[in-house]
Amino acid sequence: MTDPRLSMVAERLKGIRSVIAVSSGKGGVGKSLIASTLALTLAKKGLRVGLFDLDFTSPSTHLILGVGNVRPKEDKGIIPPKVCGIEYMSIIYYSGDYATPLRGEDTSNVLVELLAITRWGELDFLVLDMPPGIGDATLDLLRLIRNVRFIIVTTPSVLAFETAKKLANLLKEQKTPIIGVIENMKMDHSEAIRQQTQKLGLTYLAEIPYDSEVEEAIGNPELLLNTVFARKVGNATAGI
Amino acid sequence: MTDPRLSMVAERLKGIRSVIAVSSGKGGVGKSLIASTLALTLAKKGLRVGLFDLDFTSPSTHLILGVGNVRPKEDKGIIPPKVCGIEYMSIIYYSGDYATPLRGEDTSNVLVELLAITRWGELDFLVLDMPPGIGDATLDLLRLIRNVRFIIVTTPSVLAFETAKKLANLLKEQKTPIIGVIENMKMDHSEAIRQQTQKLGLTYLAEIPYDSEVEEAIGNPELLLNTVFARKVGNATAGI
Repeated sequence: MTDPRLSMVAERLKGIRSVIAVSSGKGGVGKSLIASTLALTLAKKGLRVGLFDLDFTSPSTHLILGVGNVRPKEDKGIIPPKVCGIEYMSIIYYSGDYATPLRGEDTSNVLVELLAITRWGELDFLVLDMPPGIGDATLDLLRLIRNVRFIIVTTPSVLAFETAKKLANLLKEQKTPIIGVIENMKMDHSEAIRQQTQKLGLTYLAEIPYDSEVEEAIGNPELLLNTVFARKVGNATAGI
Repeated sequence: MTDPRLSMVAERLKGIRSVIAVSSGKGGVGKSLIASTLALTLAKKGLRVGLFDLDFTSPSTHLILGVGNVRPKEDKGIIPPKVCGIEYMSIIYYSGDYATPLRGEDTSNVLVELLAITRWGELDFLVLDMPPGIGDATLDLLRLIRNVRFIIVTTPSVLAFETAKKLANLLKEQKTPIIGVIENMKMDHSEAIRQQTQKLGLTYLAEIPYDSEVEEAIGNPELLLNTVFARKVGNATAGI
């Protein structure tokens, strides 16, 4: 039997012009910071933007945005609260500060459920903060959202880039469009990641230097938007 | 029906004196580097050590150790190859360089299967490189290995520590022993993480400064063991 929620997901997402998944092969590369900053930057331009934190294992966009006690409203589904001009949705609304040890099948269920009940309305962009690596949420998303495009975040470290390559290969196999690769937390001027990205046939969107101001700006979106980091994220994604 | 492999797991692990799981709330905090360095350091002391890479979403210890074309041998189970004096086992042996999009139930299956078939023999320490966060592998492991003790790795970032706290809470609920917390990639002298760790009732094992030499040492265990990073990991874990 087909899960009736699957057709609801399509219905819920039909008012969204563009879905951008910000992803990475491994954690700790700045994926959530880039997803949050991208959403803030687009909203500042006057676009209608949603941000959906799908990083079930370690959600962190609520910390980055400094989301206080706002909660989604229930009205024939869930209406995401507006945070810093963004329609904001996260697994954290349903788990609070508790550990959320979801098993694979539960993750799939929660993902489908949240996609089926959330009323995004009309949006220019929905930015997804994906879990790192290639897990259930990534596989489900490719199945559920047809028109999603990916940005892959890596650091200069071979450990990050090797896993980013795996993600890129999976996406290519699935014929999912990849907007390009962002090299984050750069501390030198090595061309290695740029060259390897281009060798994979992918667009190298930008290098972003390590910016110690970003940690200070966590929880303060105004401050975050004023960092070099945010300016670089804005430039890198100006063409999406 | 009980899975007959579960009793095999206990049988396979009975020659191991101590199982240490190196874990973190989120990725990119240096967990795999610390797990690998811990295993190398213990082996250098003449102890019998195994290292098992359980980070299914982004395995990387094979890159850190520079594991070449060695493969496990099959003989009434799987005998892990010896790499740099360590009995070394990784999911990567079975996935190669391909993307490994395992669904939750598959992850559980592969984990139980690998634990059931691997012949570790007599070991003083088995070091587990865990996946970041609280996922299937963590839950299964707590169920399968009774005497496992955890080291939690974090960075100074609030994003890393908040997720580390969640992991600590889960482990406490499960009454799983936590050896302590390592604060990695420190760039200043803030006492914040030390204080918060102690407030949680956990041991603050060490602060490890950011060490740019480590990236150069990836793939070269000899070089890795000569870094400040390795010396700090050794000191932090001298009492385990």
